[in-house]
Amino acid sequence: MEREPTLRLRVFDLNCWAIRYLSKRRQERVRLIGDMLRRDSFDLVLLQEVWSEQDYSDLMVKLAGCYPFSHYFRSGVIGSGLCVFSRFPILDTLLYQYSLNGYPYMLQHGDWFCGKSVGLVVMKISGIIFNVYVTHLHAEYCREKDAYLPHRLVQAWELAQFIRHTSKAADVVLLGGDLNMHPEDVGIRLLRGWTGLRDAFAEAKHFEGCKNGCTLVPDNCFTEKSELLPFPLGIRIDYILYKAISSFTVKCEELKTTTGPAPGVDIPFSDHEAVMATLHIQRQPQAEGATLGTAELALADVVAEARTEVGVGLRAAQRQRYSSGRMAVLALLLLLLQAMAALGTLAGLGPDQPFPKLSFCLLAFLALGVLVLSVGLHLFHTMEVKMLHGTEDQMWMALRALQERPSDG
Amino acid sequence: MEREPTLRLRVFDLNCWAIRYLSKRRQERVRLIGDMLRRDSFDLVLLQEVWSEQDYSDLMVKLAGCYPFSHYFRSGVIGSGLCVFSRFPILDTLLYQYSLNGYPYMLQHGDWFCGKSVGLVVMKISGIIFNVYVTHLHAEYCREKDAYLPHRLVQAWELAQFIRHTSKAADVVLLGGDLNMHPEDVGIRLLRGWTGLRDAFAEAKHFEGCKNGCTLVPDNCFTEKSELLPFPLGIRIDYILYKAISSFTVKCEELKTTTGPAPGVDIPFSDHEAVMATLHIQRQPQAEGATLGTAELALADVVAEARTEVGVGLRAAQRQRYSSGRMAVLALLLLLLQAMAALGTLAGLGPDQPFPKLSFCLLAFLALGVLVLSVGLHLFHTMEVKMLHGTEDQMWMALRALQERPSDG
Repeated sequence: MEREPTLRLRVFDLNCWAIRYLSKRRQERVRLIGDMLRRDSFDLVLLQEVWSEQDYSDLMVKLAGCYPFSHYFRSGVIGSGLCVFSRFPILDTLLYQYSLNGYPYMLQHGDWFCGKSVGLVVMKISGIIFNVYVTHLHAEYCREKDAYLPHRLVQAWELAQFIRHTSKAADVVLLGGDLNMHPEDVGIRLLRGWTGLRDAFAEAKHFEGCKNGCTLVPDNCFTEKSELLPFPLGIRIDYILYKAISSFTVKCEELKTTTGPAPGVDIPFSDHEAVMATLHIQRQPQAEGATLGTAELALADVVAEARTEVGVGLRAAQRQRYSSGRMAVLALLLLLLQAMAALGTLAGLGPDQPFPKLSFCLLAFLALGVLVLSVGLHLFHTMEVKMLHGTEDQMWMALRALQERPSDG
Repeated sequence: MEREPTLRLRVFDLNCWAIRYLSKRRQERVRLIGDMLRRDSFDLVLLQEVWSEQDYSDLMVKLAGCYPFSHYFRSGVIGSGLCVFSRFPILDTLLYQYSLNGYPYMLQHGDWFCGKSVGLVVMKISGIIFNVYVTHLHAEYCREKDAYLPHRLVQAWELAQFIRHTSKAADVVLLGGDLNMHPEDVGIRLLRGWTGLRDAFAEAKHFEGCKNGCTLVPDNCFTEKSELLPFPLGIRIDYILYKAISSFTVKCEELKTTTGPAPGVDIPFSDHEAVMATLHIQRQPQAEGATLGTAELALADVVAEARTEVGVGLRAAQRQRYSSGRMAVLALLLLLLQAMAALGTLAGLGPDQPFPKLSFCLLAFLALGVLVLSVGLHLFHTMEVKMLHGTEDQMWMALRALQERPSDG
């Protein structure tokens, strides 16, 4: 049956929830993750939310024996949180920072400060070129009224485009990460359809772990129970996706998730469950066509659906740009008015009552503060409008291409 | 001599200097550029500094007949300013925004607001796949003390990496743009060495135009004469670079630059001269190796030199991060002190003199302003440190790879 030798690759993916000062029992958990990775020797480890470079360095030291190659992707104010550990040499890396990633003033959500990105590492294992991508998309804080959906869709689109454009010389493409999307969400369908990536959970011959492959489950002591109320089994938002590009086939022999506490202790590794896939990669005599081209019409529908959502975001961003601009103009007018009043008083034109210096100063500073803030907001929303508009354009181009060349991969 | 048919491709590149409200006689010049492009039919037009979408739309309408395909790259607050017009269909596009691009507080330079990027358009002409890149790197405001050199080097590195990773399926790679570097600068050597791109000016069989191929010349009535004092002939900072990847050869038959005023009028098209290349592309029986691998040792020297400059920038950014952090702490202390004084006075603990409300308020607002500003600066420089550090790491990885695998392309 096996004419060509099969390469067996064990891949580990985990959102580590290692935010300094905020994540509970962080150092203990990072130690546990390191111990487990050293014990269960995987070939490839894709981690997210390793925000502290110290945690990365500690892991690197601990794992130097079994994973001699590693890379930490730096970006944004806090960092990308992405890193890769590998048994095989990393030949090259590239980082792509998503153009939209939430709002700087949504401090309680904080995504903006993290410089959400996709990291690429190129590796050659047994003569097979692997393009391995690790990413973390914008969180979904409220499913019913998801204000970040357009931003997450822009990210899913940029992720798909980045993978398509950078993977043309690869034999096998792997993507692991916390995509913050449910399996049937439009962003996942867009990503899978536009790249041809397949979902390890759906393709796995054997599965073991949380029901339905969920990775955010109510049983985990660190998850926010209220957020999971509508989903008593939990949700699946962490993925390992893959495809073979040239004359190779990839099959998922086994998929596992962790289920609650780490062995021998009372806490789990993270607020997410880890995803572990065993992949079998084999050279096959004849090249397999890219997955694109099989369901072009369905793909066009998905792109159109995503484009509609991006359009909704675009109109919201335009409204916000308009109102912040108007606020800036009003603050400027108030300042001018005050300047005129002050000049008038200085010239002795005002009434004989004493000039209310204190409240005048306070008002001026307030107006100045509002002016600075609203100009900042206006600039930010201008940028947001540009990026949403650009994505809408690109999706339109993709739709046209899908309709014109129905059999092109 | 010519067994295979030769594809002749005429490429036009120009930094249009079309900044709304700032560039002199902008609309007139954009009209002139459009007229000239319509008259001299090129195959591919790469423009920079088309900041106004309206200018792009006007050009698109005017050029619809001879250049039916076009793309405008949106990014940043003002935009990327990059656009492409083409006689041949554009199949796909991708935009990569550089991670560093000057400082938001350097308002007089303004680069930060432009979202400097590299745009990629993929085209298929006569069965040959072209990856065409257009870009504009950070300006050099003072050559003797170039504070932006580390940022420009990060951009040159990211540009080279982006081209390498995205061009693997291309037959021919073209890059056009204002690189803001002299031909012998380390950034250009890095870009050329790391990608294998060749300089159309150096390779051209025939050349016609400004002496030494200069594109920023004192004769141009819009250039800043004082900046060009050390260079009486001008400088060459706009380039068309190319290479063939698979079994093709590219030759530059002719290179031209514009020389001063546009025909029939008293002004030139822009403050830069345009670069126009005629390329001959031919399939050749045996594949030509990538240019990499021929001068590995020289390349390692260039990467090491660039890495040193990035390191200098890293240490400067670390100092700025430290001093802005210290300023933030001092401002916070002052605010706390004021809060204590105010509380003391309210509790009747202060001296019997009247409380100086106005100066107290002014001081508090000043401290608050300094706090907000310095926190912003601290965050920005933290990001800068991360990106410079990341680039240093990547360059180190490249150096290691060059030393370990001296014949790998």
